[in-house]
Amino acid sequence: MSPKITTELLKQLRQVMKNPKYVQEPVQAYIVPSGDAHQSEYIAPCDCRRAFISGFDGSAGTAIVTEQHAAMWTDGRYFLQAAHQMDNNWTLMKMGLKDTPTQEDWLVSVLPEGSKVGVDPFIIPADQWKRMSKVLRSAGHDLVPVKENLIDTIWTDCPQRPCKPLITLDLSYTGVSWRDKIVALRSKMAERKVMWFVVTALDEVAWLFNLRGSDVEYNPVFFAYAVIGMNTIRLFIDGDRMMDPPVREHLQLDSTLEPEFKIQVMPYGSILSELQAVGAGLSPKEKVWLSDKASYALTEAIPKAYRYLTPYTPICIAKAVKNAAETEGMRRAHIKDAVALCELFNWLEKEVPKGTVTEIIAADKAEEFRSQQKDFVELSFATISSTGPNGAIIHYKPVPETNRTLSVNEIYLLDSGAQYKDGTTDVTRTMHFGTPSAYEKECFTYVLKGHIAVSAAIFPNGTKGHLLDSFARSALWDCGLDYLHGTGHGVGSFLNVHEGPCGISYKTFADEPLEAGMVVSDEPGYYEDGSFGIRIENVVLVIPAETKYNFKNRGSLTFEPLTLVPIQMKMIDVNLLTEKECNWVNEYHQKCREVVGAELERQGRHEALQWLLRETEPLGRVQ
Amino acid sequence: MSPKITTELLKQLRQVMKNPKYVQEPVQAYIVPSGDAHQSEYIAPCDCRRAFISGFDGSAGTAIVTEQHAAMWTDGRYFLQAAHQMDNNWTLMKMGLKDTPTQEDWLVSVLPEGSKVGVDPFIIPADQWKRMSKVLRSAGHDLVPVKENLIDTIWTDCPQRPCKPLITLDLSYTGVSWRDKIVALRSKMAERKVMWFVVTALDEVAWLFNLRGSDVEYNPVFFAYAVIGMNTIRLFIDGDRMMDPPVREHLQLDSTLEPEFKIQVMPYGSILSELQAVGAGLSPKEKVWLSDKASYALTEAIPKAYRYLTPYTPICIAKAVKNAAETEGMRRAHIKDAVALCELFNWLEKEVPKGTVTEIIAADKAEEFRSQQKDFVELSFATISSTGPNGAIIHYKPVPETNRTLSVNEIYLLDSGAQYKDGTTDVTRTMHFGTPSAYEKECFTYVLKGHIAVSAAIFPNGTKGHLLDSFARSALWDCGLDYLHGTGHGVGSFLNVHEGPCGISYKTFADEPLEAGMVVSDEPGYYEDGSFGIRIENVVLVIPAETKYNFKNRGSLTFEPLTLVPIQMKMIDVNLLTEKECNWVNEYHQKCREVVGAELERQGRHEALQWLLRETEPLGRVQ
Repeated sequence: MSPKITTELLKQLRQVMKNPKYVQEPVQAYIVPSGDAHQSEYIAPCDCRRAFISGFDGSAGTAIVTEQHAAMWTDGRYFLQAAHQMDNNWTLMKMGLKDTPTQEDWLVSVLPEGSKVGVDPFIIPADQWKRMSKVLRSAGHDLVPVKENLIDTIWTDCPQRPCKPLITLDLSYTGVSWRDKIVALRSKMAERKVMWFVVTALDEVAWLFNLRGSDVEYNPVFFAYAVIGMNTIRLFIDGDRMMDPPVREHLQLDSTLEPEFKIQVMPYGSILSELQAVGAGLSPKEKVWLSDKASYALTEAIPKAYRYLTPYTPICIAKAVKNAAETEGMRRAHIKDAVALCELFNWLEKEVPKGTVTEIIAADKAEEFRSQQKDFVELSFATISSTGPNGAIIHYKPVPETNRTLSVNEIYLLDSGAQYKDGTTDVTRTMHFGTPSAYEKECFTYVLKGHIAVSAAIFPNGTKGHLLDSFARSALWDCGLDYLHGTGHGVGSFLNVHEGPCGISYKTFADEPLEAGMVVSDEPGYYEDGSFGIRIENVVLVIPAETKYNFKNRGSLTFEPLTLVPIQMKMIDVNLLTEKECNWVNEYHQKCREVVGAELERQGRHEALQWLLRETEPLGRVQ
Repeated sequence: MSPKITTELLKQLRQVMKNPKYVQEPVQAYIVPSGDAHQSEYIAPCDCRRAFISGFDGSAGTAIVTEQHAAMWTDGRYFLQAAHQMDNNWTLMKMGLKDTPTQEDWLVSVLPEGSKVGVDPFIIPADQWKRMSKVLRSAGHDLVPVKENLIDTIWTDCPQRPCKPLITLDLSYTGVSWRDKIVALRSKMAERKVMWFVVTALDEVAWLFNLRGSDVEYNPVFFAYAVIGMNTIRLFIDGDRMMDPPVREHLQLDSTLEPEFKIQVMPYGSILSELQAVGAGLSPKEKVWLSDKASYALTEAIPKAYRYLTPYTPICIAKAVKNAAETEGMRRAHIKDAVALCELFNWLEKEVPKGTVTEIIAADKAEEFRSQQKDFVELSFATISSTGPNGAIIHYKPVPETNRTLSVNEIYLLDSGAQYKDGTTDVTRTMHFGTPSAYEKECFTYVLKGHIAVSAAIFPNGTKGHLLDSFARSALWDCGLDYLHGTGHGVGSFLNVHEGPCGISYKTFADEPLEAGMVVSDEPGYYEDGSFGIRIENVVLVIPAETKYNFKNRGSLTFEPLTLVPIQMKMIDVNLLTEKECNWVNEYHQKCREVVGAELERQGRHEALQWLLRETEPLGRVQ
C-alpha cells in the first residue's frame, strides 16, 4: 500500500479556504469529518471526502487542515493503516494514547489568534459542534459553518450520489408494520410532549418504513430523511424509486388513508427549508425531537428553545430490541452464513497447502459461498481476510499491494459477514492450516477464554454492556496481554452491522442497558504487530437467564450465540481451559453440529458436513 | 429506632424561609445538603444540619423542604435506615432506582412558577450549584445563595464548632516534609500555569502540612483552609492551637525562612474576604486552581475567567499514592488491627454462646482491644456491629433501641476500623458462632469468590477501578444475586477512611486510574432484607504485578491485602471454590498466621494466637 500523494490537493484546499467564492471570510483551518449528512459510519463514495483529501480510508477518522499543518485523528484499529496510507504532509494523531491532543486542543495550539475554523454544517454532528465551538471560543477562535463543502469544490471527479431502487420488507421479516411503528413512535413523542420527530440516521429511516436500499455499500440503506408529526409523515427522498409499484403499495401512497398515515414524499434536498418552516411555525411549548448527533445544520433549523435532543432516539432503542420475527430471521441468516463458512473452511483446508490461495481469493471465495444462500443480498462489511502480520492490522482489508498468500506457516484471520433479507451476520474465526506454535495457541486460548467469559456471563437486567467488557480481558490481563478495541457492538437486523445504542466496551459513554432481544457481537482479540492477529467473534442474542435466585425480582440476562461456526480446536491449548470453559466449547460445537449439520444435509453439502463433523468432535482435557 | 418528630421544626424552617431578616426575598424551597463548608463526608456535630432537620443521620443524603413537602435523597446503603429515622413529614427519594426523580426534576415538578430555591453557598459544591442552577433556570426558577444558614437560625442548641489541638507527624510517618509537598504542588501549578491553589478539603490541608487534628469524629482533620501562591502560603485556622510549641516548630513559624516557605496564619473565617482580595488583584492570565467540588461561595470569590477547576486536585492525587513510609505505616497499622480482631473473635467465640454479648458490647470490646495497640488514636468510622436482620442494613450502627444480642443462631457482621498514627484500617468480617445454614454458606462463598476475584485480579497500568467492579459480582450474578453498593473506596494514610480519587464501583464518574501505591478497599457483600447481611472487606494496596508478557510495555498491577484477619472457614462452602480460589484462601491465611502470629507472640497474646492458628488451618476441597 503506497501512500496517496496529497501535496497538490492540500495546496488547492488551502486556496479555497481563502477564496471568497466559497467562504465569507478566510478560514485558517478546515475540518473534514468522517461521516455524511446522516452521520453514517459507512458512507457512499461521494461522501468519502476525508479519504479523498488524505488517502486514509478507514471507517473512522477526522482530518483537519490548516495553513501549515494537516492532521488526522483516528483510533487504535487504524494506527497502522493510516500510517501506511498517508504521505508526509500528514501527522497521525493516535486517539486513546495519553499524549495525543484532542482536535480542539491541537487547533488552539497551532492557530494564530482570532482564527476561523470552518466545517460543513451538514457533516458535523450538533454535539460535536457544541463541544468544539465552546473550546475554540474560549481560546478566542470561531467555529464557522461553510455552506459549500470545500472538498467538493476541489474534487473534480467526485462520483454522483447513489439513488438505487428500494426493497420492501413484509411482516414476515419485520414483525411490525410501518404504521404500527409510527403509532409507537407517536406514543413515545406524546410521553415526552414533543410534536415533531426528525429522523436523520439512514438506518432509522429504513427501519421505520420497513424499506431497504443499496445507496451505501454493505449497509442496506437509502438516502432519505423523515419528519414525523403527530398527524403528518414527510419522507424526503430523491429519484424515481418512489414510482416503483411495490414501493407505492408498501407505503400505501395511492390508497385512501387516514390523514395521519398519509406519507408526503418530498425531495431529499428540501429537508433544510422544510425543517426551517417547521421551526418557524412552532407555538410555545411545541418541541422538536432530534438526535444530538444530527447535523449542526438541521439542529440549527429549530430554534434552541424548541429543541428536544437525546443521545439515542426512540427509533434507535426500539430498533435495537429485535422482535420474534426479527430474531427468527437472525437465526436463519446465521445458519446460512455458517453453511457458507463450513464450505469455505473445508475448501481452504484443501487449497491452502497448494500455495495458491491469497487473502483476496479467500475473501472472494467466502463471498461466493455466501451468495449461494437464500435471500443473500450483499456483504455486511469489507471482508477482513488477513494472514500473518496483516492480521495485526485490526481493520485490514486486502488490496493487491498487501495481498499475502495463505500458508501452513501463518495464522489466518477472517472477519466477514453478510446481509441476508432475514438478517445480518458478522463472524470472525482465526485458523491455522499447519501446526500453530505453542505461543500462538496460548494467545488464542486466552482470547477464547475471554470470548466464553462474555458469552456465558449472567448479569442483572438493566446492566450496561461496559460492565461486561473486563470479563473478555481477564485471561489476557492475567498474562500481561490486552487488545486495543472494544469487545462488542450492536448488530442490525438486515441493517447496519454496527448499530447503537448498546455495546460492550471499556468506553462507558452513553451505552444503554442491555435488554432481552438486543443483538451484540462478542469479539475479543489479541494482536502482535508485525506478526499475527487473533480474534474470535460471535454475534450473540441477549436472552433471559434462568438463575437459582432472583435478587429484588430484577431478573437476569445472558447471551445465546447466533453465530454457529466451529472454533478451530487445533488452536486451543486445552490445558489452559477450565472444565466449565471446556464444556462451553463442547456444547457450542454440539449445537453447531446439530443445527448447521441439518442445514448442510438439507442443502446436500456432504463434504462440508464431513468437515463440520470433524471440527465439532468433543474436546478432552489432558489431566 | 423511633423516627424524629419534625413537624414543629419544619414549621419553623418554613417561617424563616419567608423571614426578611434572613432572606432577601422569600424562598419557596430550601436545600440542606449533607456536607460542611469543606464538602466533607464525615462532619462535626455543628454541621449535622440535615440530621437535625430530618432525623436521618446516615453519611449521605440531601434534604429539600418546600412549603408543602419535605423530601430526602439518599442511596441504597441507607434506604432502610432513613425510612426508620424519619417521620411522616418526609418523603424518601431512593437514589439509583429508575423512578426516583433527581432533586432538580422534583423541584421543577412541585414548585409554583418563578420560585426561588435557597441554599447555603458555603455548603453546596460549585459543580452541584452549576447543575441545579441550570435546570432550575431553564424551568423558570432561581437558585439563590442564602448567606445565613437557615437551619442554624432555628437550631437553638447547636453545638460549638470544635477547635481541638493538633498532632504533628514527622518524616518517619509521612515520608515527605510539608516543604517538599509545597514544592511539588508549586511545580504542578507551574505545569498548569496557575498562580494560586486553594485547599478546601480538610484532609488535603492536613496531608499538605503533615498535621492531624480531631475536630471531626473518626477523621483526623481540623477546620482550616489554605491558599498556596507561587511565593506565599496562607493557612486559615482558628484557636490557640497554633500557639502550641511543637506545632510552631513543625511549621517553622518562628524560624527565619525563605519567604516562599513562610506560613502566614490567618483566622478561619477570613478565607472568603482574603480570597475575594486575591480574586480582585489578579492580572490577566493569572489563574486560581480550585476543586470543582469546592463551595459555591469560595468559587464565586474568583471571577469566572480566572478559575481553573478540576474534579481532583493535585493534592488529592498525590495523597492517594502512598510513599514507602506511608505504605510501611499502613502495613504496621493493619497488623496491629489484626491483633485486636484476633483477640475480639477469640473472646466472642467464648462469650456469644452465653447470650450476654450485644452488638454494642461487641463494638465496645473491639474498640477496647484496638485501643491497647501502639499509636492508636481513635476509630476510623462508627463500628457496624450487626447481627441477623440488622446486618442487612448496610450502614447500620447499633443504638440501644436496635441493639440485638449475638447468638449461635444468627450471622454476625462486623465492619470496623481505626486510626493509628501510622495508618488507617477498615475491615469487615462476617461470622457465625453456631452452625450456618447451607444457604448462608452458599451466599457467603459467592461473596468470597467476588472478593478474591478483585483481590487477585491482574490488570494493565492505567486501568480505572470501575473496570474491576464486575469481577466482584460475577459469582453472585451467576445465581441471580447482587449487592447495591460499590465494591471499594480509597483509604487514607492516618486520614479519612474514604478518600478519592480512586475506587471500585459500577458508577463510572471521575475515578482516576489505579496506580501502584494506591490503597482501596475490596468489599463485596450480599444482603437479604429482614434476614442477614454478609460482607468480606480487606484494605488492599495496589502493587506492580509480575506477568509472563508485557503488552505494549504498559506494565501490570494487582493488589496486596493489607488486612490480615482470617476469613471464617465454617462459612465457606469449599466445594463452590475453584482450586485457584482455594489456594488464595490458604495463602492468605498462611500470611495472616505468619505475620499476625509473630506479632501476637511478641505481644504475649497466647490465647488469641491459638485462635489464629486454629482459624488459619488449610482448607481442603472435598473431591
